[in-house]
Amino acid sequence: MPVGLSAPRDLLPVSGVRLATAEAGIRYAGRRDLTLIHLDPGTRVAGVFTRNRFRAAPVLVAEAHLAAGREIRALVINTGNANAGTGETGLRSAQESCEAVALALGCTSGQVLPFSTGVIGEPVDLAARIRGALPGCVPALDRNGWNGAAQAILTTDTVAKAFSRQVEVDGRPVTVTGMAKGSGMIRPDMATMLAFIATDAAVEKAALDELLHRAVDASFNRITVDGDMSTNDACILMATGQAGNGPVESGSAGFGRLREAVQEVALALAQAIVRDGEGATKFIPVRVSGGKNPAECLQVAYRMAHSPLIKTAFFASDPNWGRLLAAIGSAGVEDLDVRQVQISLGGLCIVRQGARDPAYTEAAGQAVMAREEIPVHVDLGRGTAEEEIWTCDLSHEYVRINAEYRS
Amino acid sequence: MPVGLSAPRDLLPVSGVRLATAEAGIRYAGRRDLTLIHLDPGTRVAGVFTRNRFRAAPVLVAEAHLAAGREIRALVINTGNANAGTGETGLRSAQESCEAVALALGCTSGQVLPFSTGVIGEPVDLAARIRGALPGCVPALDRNGWNGAAQAILTTDTVAKAFSRQVEVDGRPVTVTGMAKGSGMIRPDMATMLAFIATDAAVEKAALDELLHRAVDASFNRITVDGDMSTNDACILMATGQAGNGPVESGSAGFGRLREAVQEVALALAQAIVRDGEGATKFIPVRVSGGKNPAECLQVAYRMAHSPLIKTAFFASDPNWGRLLAAIGSAGVEDLDVRQVQISLGGLCIVRQGARDPAYTEAAGQAVMAREEIPVHVDLGRGTAEEEIWTCDLSHEYVRINAEYRS
Repeated sequence: MPVGLSAPRDLLPVSGVRLATAEAGIRYAGRRDLTLIHLDPGTRVAGVFTRNRFRAAPVLVAEAHLAAGREIRALVINTGNANAGTGETGLRSAQESCEAVALALGCTSGQVLPFSTGVIGEPVDLAARIRGALPGCVPALDRNGWNGAAQAILTTDTVAKAFSRQVEVDGRPVTVTGMAKGSGMIRPDMATMLAFIATDAAVEKAALDELLHRAVDASFNRITVDGDMSTNDACILMATGQAGNGPVESGSAGFGRLREAVQEVALALAQAIVRDGEGATKFIPVRVSGGKNPAECLQVAYRMAHSPLIKTAFFASDPNWGRLLAAIGSAGVEDLDVRQVQISLGGLCIVRQGARDPAYTEAAGQAVMAREEIPVHVDLGRGTAEEEIWTCDLSHEYVRINAEYRS
Repeated sequence: MPVGLSAPRDLLPVSGVRLATAEAGIRYAGRRDLTLIHLDPGTRVAGVFTRNRFRAAPVLVAEAHLAAGREIRALVINTGNANAGTGETGLRSAQESCEAVALALGCTSGQVLPFSTGVIGEPVDLAARIRGALPGCVPALDRNGWNGAAQAILTTDTVAKAFSRQVEVDGRPVTVTGMAKGSGMIRPDMATMLAFIATDAAVEKAALDELLHRAVDASFNRITVDGDMSTNDACILMATGQAGNGPVESGSAGFGRLREAVQEVALALAQAIVRDGEGATKFIPVRVSGGKNPAECLQVAYRMAHSPLIKTAFFASDPNWGRLLAAIGSAGVEDLDVRQVQISLGGLCIVRQGARDPAYTEAAGQAVMAREEIPVHVDLGRGTAEEEIWTCDLSHEYVRINAEYRS
């Protein structure tokens, strides 16, 4: 059960973007495992990809196609197989998938970006499956296809994740709609899932890159479920330019508003991934303030967010704050003066000056831990830097899902 | 159920060392939670302690007493409460515990080292409990007390961990006996548990320090259960000098033999901690070879050993080697050429040149994963450095233990 997250509502179509899904039978029969996104001519596309050294074949191909600067006309996304660790065969399969899509849509293969998610290292003739499903898929392309697509890109996710925002740019209403998948193998370092965000705004190329990087940094790079980094992660921002605004340039008023909307969608998607983290029963924002610099704030925050002991304590609703303290102390902030450290849970002060707050009671701690959303706040008491990340707990269900995922 | 580990057998007493245990009622009634180790005059003691910035009161006191250079005459160890995150009160309590032991044994409090393990941050009047139990404890001191002590220092451990070795130094038989506790909150960075190793050899001070540091580095600093670092960890090496050998100096032949024996005991204890890791059902040696330097080998090894996805796959006996590949690729070896990487499990080659070995079959992979001990070997194919660490899987039982530990 995701924490405080329900199925997408009120998704707004983005002019110039049409979507369709199909059953390609890549791993399981009878499920929609193929998603096609069609982009009108004139659309600009920016992307960021996983930093894993083992990069899946579709990541290599998508990056190369983006880098070549051709106008991107379509995205093809499959679940069921990550096409990672598949060597030359996998690379060929990703390329052939693009060719199949290009043939079906009347563009060139360099104008298609491929994305795969699912099991790593399983050989499968992806291109053949995709080729077989395209004839059913292309005629179904629809500007209202976001809901179906948000569902079809999921793997171990339990609920679809998609959000829309509208803002005004140049007096024109501009729409931003995005969807994402991700539940396990989630950690920062860009960008631990697949996310596709589209806007009908017209945006200059440099401004589009900046929009994407700033949004990713404040959202997908601030979440962790299990500290594992996928081979296939990608976040794509598409701007069709059909809203009628003058092209947005970096630093303009329109840029600020559009940035806010894109960031809101990205953050909502990122938090949705954590809320639907594998086996998650708690949503835990972790804020670290009073650091000398952002890096050490993040260091302490991730040390806590990656600790299995802390995550199981949250699962148990146990205010076992000693585990927080141990994690903070081992985060590698070498000259940390523990007597300056304060810790609070859900607004309740637990540790003051490095030891238990005299006013703290176990009953008050338990009341806070019983909640579904439990903000952790640590003040290091040594500076003014501050960072926030989001994580979830570690439950029996996490072990079950990941022990049974391939069976 | 620990993996391939049974209760201690054939423990050898160490001349000059006597041990006793008692029920002090620190957290639970009716369990032996206090251990006293008495050392004859002339014993040399060396210690290494946790690097956590939150260091428990007993760690601070023990380090200070060791640093002052007084002859150490006793160690007092309690379970049930870690006396960590307890501020000034905790520090006073640790000091008063030493005073109580000193009074009972006729030495000064600076000659006593205190150790605590258990829940963090719970206030308890440790000194009073210990004072109350000492009158029963002191008369029970016995050179054959190792078995009872190895049992009494445990917390979530399911089986006692103690080993003995004998070697000859200067034609004299020399004994090394050690015991350790530790099961959760285990990660390297010295030294993630309590371990007490004694020998009757006579050893020079500098040589004793070197013996300890080399042994710890090759054993306790090479294991991980959950990546959490405790506030209380310590490893102590005691040399009573009663074996009749000439004092062992660094670099001598006797040093080499004694080093081997101490290292064997330390490694057996360290591996025992992993074999009895919280919820462990598999014992997993992780060897990384072909690195440019030891640091990157360890980096890759720990990345795998800390991955919840890999650990749950081992629990499920699932040869989900894509998770290994993803972890290796995200270990931060920036210029890793994945086409050079080889992975084998239990001697079975799975990945060759960065992709699945053509000869690999899922059935063969499953047969290997069904074993209780599964060595992982990764060759990075870029150098001659090699390192090995030891870890265990992540099971339902791990979550249960840590979700229920305080209840």
